[in-house]
Amino acid sequence: MTSIGIVSPQVMHFKEPLPLQGGTSLADYSLTYETYGKLNADRTNAVLVCHALNASHHVAGYYLTDKGEKSIGWWDNMVGPGKPLDTDKFFVIGVNNLGSCFGSTGPMHVNPATGKPYGASFPVVTVEDWVDAQARLADALGIEQFAAVMGGSLGGMQALAWSLRYPRRLRHCVVIASTPKLSAQNIAFNDVARQAILTDPDFHGGDFYAHGVVPKRGLRVARMIGHITYLSDDDMAEKFGRDLRDGKYQFGFGIDFEIESYLRYQGDKFSEYFDANTYLLITKALDYFDPAREFGGDLARTLAGTEAQFLLVSFTTDWRFSPVRSREMVQALVNNKRRVSYAEIDAPHGHDAFLLEDARYLRTVRTYYDRVWQEIAAGDAA
Amino acid sequence: MTSIGIVSPQVMHFKEPLPLQGGTSLADYSLTYETYGKLNADRTNAVLVCHALNASHHVAGYYLTDKGEKSIGWWDNMVGPGKPLDTDKFFVIGVNNLGSCFGSTGPMHVNPATGKPYGASFPVVTVEDWVDAQARLADALGIEQFAAVMGGSLGGMQALAWSLRYPRRLRHCVVIASTPKLSAQNIAFNDVARQAILTDPDFHGGDFYAHGVVPKRGLRVARMIGHITYLSDDDMAEKFGRDLRDGKYQFGFGIDFEIESYLRYQGDKFSEYFDANTYLLITKALDYFDPAREFGGDLARTLAGTEAQFLLVSFTTDWRFSPVRSREMVQALVNNKRRVSYAEIDAPHGHDAFLLEDARYLRTVRTYYDRVWQEIAAGDAA
Repeated sequence: MTSIGIVSPQVMHFKEPLPLQGGTSLADYSLTYETYGKLNADRTNAVLVCHALNASHHVAGYYLTDKGEKSIGWWDNMVGPGKPLDTDKFFVIGVNNLGSCFGSTGPMHVNPATGKPYGASFPVVTVEDWVDAQARLADALGIEQFAAVMGGSLGGMQALAWSLRYPRRLRHCVVIASTPKLSAQNIAFNDVARQAILTDPDFHGGDFYAHGVVPKRGLRVARMIGHITYLSDDDMAEKFGRDLRDGKYQFGFGIDFEIESYLRYQGDKFSEYFDANTYLLITKALDYFDPAREFGGDLARTLAGTEAQFLLVSFTTDWRFSPVRSREMVQALVNNKRRVSYAEIDAPHGHDAFLLEDARYLRTVRTYYDRVWQEIAAGDAA
Repeated sequence: MTSIGIVSPQVMHFKEPLPLQGGTSLADYSLTYETYGKLNADRTNAVLVCHALNASHHVAGYYLTDKGEKSIGWWDNMVGPGKPLDTDKFFVIGVNNLGSCFGSTGPMHVNPATGKPYGASFPVVTVEDWVDAQARLADALGIEQFAAVMGGSLGGMQALAWSLRYPRRLRHCVVIASTPKLSAQNIAFNDVARQAILTDPDFHGGDFYAHGVVPKRGLRVARMIGHITYLSDDDMAEKFGRDLRDGKYQFGFGIDFEIESYLRYQGDKFSEYFDANTYLLITKALDYFDPAREFGGDLARTLAGTEAQFLLVSFTTDWRFSPVRSREMVQALVNNKRRVSYAEIDAPHGHDAFLLEDARYLRTVRTYYDRVWQEIAAGDAA
């Protein structure tokens, strides 16, 4: 397996307003995206990869930074030549979602209506809004139907939303470490993180750009909370346990334990590059996702409108979106007689497992895409 | 069962310096405590109740507030006439720990060496330090041996520490919803909470008293995080689920979900009355507790020095200090041929279950104290 090598993002501008679930619309926006591999003549080999909370369109390959270091895509172990999602066969698209701070139109950008950064006035966007924007990008790229739409965590919600909003525009739906809706506990963690940001004096009601400051304290705490939920208790015990950084208790409020050092480092790093308004928006999109809501909570009825085939994957130690949530979707799909494959991977790494090397997991996805490819090669995809 | 009725705290002043685990000592301090019931002539019926994070010496009975409202003790369902720990039989002592903000000497009090509030200079105290201070109170009250030392959560750690530091000073050790040490995940949650406080601009390095402010934002976030860990996922789902406060999504960052409303309310309330320095101190005491540390992590060797009989109770949905942690202690005690009773209560309320009404739980404790009382009545306790 070789890497894709150096990749470059592209930008597509859209003039037609995008109606949003919240009742408003986004007048004018851009989507930043990357593509890997080649679209075949029949346009049947395109796969859309949707990103999760702090990721972006930069799925695979690498950029060279100013210092000459490689900035590698977040799913480079999954996507590339000879990799489970093989870019020698598939034309893969990674797209940055609206509201992000990594390229597509978001709170840091200038609102054409006011000439100032959107800040807190950027509309609250939903998973469905993102999917609608992605569909317009697909239109612009001439892709009528994806071979697959795929994502992990919040990305998996987007894949699921595709199967519901555009049932004929994807042949396969790959939903990894995801859930059909957040639990009260999930929402609780998101809200504490938001409160840390919203009450940081440097947040300035979301218009901190104008004040030349960043609500780093809030972002840092938000990220630390999030990080705890991405790792499993076991994995944390294994990696850090009660290890002391300096071999003994300090009897102060600096760093005693390695886990403290790790989390603070993660929080510090995150607060240097992530936008606070984006964090708020993305956690809201997570909280709001609940396609069964308009079907009285009946997930089977909700999924009756899907036409895709499904692959779902969950991880045993994921306590954020546990296997129970995936099984619920599998059951609802089976009730609708959809063709569905499901793998529950025994992995120690909690929610983060979906981003990590795990032979059984990657083999599962590879095998699935082999089948998708056979359909395409046999010309069954049209 | 009747209530104890109106109770009053008492204060005991100590002139002899208390040596601390951190290497310093506390020169001059007071302990605030309450007692219920009567000490018998043989002084064999005393029970010490140790408190957890945000509780105090006010275990049972009530105070009348300025508004004429009852402020009821935190374990009033457990302690009182005819209750599981029956104050018609036992002489029960609740004592506020050093570093608290509810009476005993803490960061809000004046440091006699400087004439200013201790603030951040209050020494980091440990579970063992608390137990040493409690032992001096027992000395002053003329109690050589407790019928039992009892506590839940952090209170259970104190009971366990009693059995190790003063093995002959308690006949029974009652450890509820506790653990012999925090896990990396437990420490992680504590550290995020501390970081929220330490980075609140109103914290002023712990000397906020002099600035006439309180780091409410940090305390509020700390409490919200803590609260999530006290409730079970199931219980939160049951009580709040995805219920919306106003029946529809607001598409903003106010309150959408009932769980948000609940947690923010809890955080607001807590930040009105709890001291930030106390919060830091108590979470550190939790993190540092690890009696097996000096025995190379061998809990059985650690507990070899105990002489008490034990009751341990855990709750199935407690994910903060899960039943596994209690079973570990039970196994280590059994390995030492200690007499130990253990109940794993199937309760939906997570860690908080130890404070709540649960017939099987309260009956378990009642039955245990019936046995303790029979020993006393038979004169076997001397």
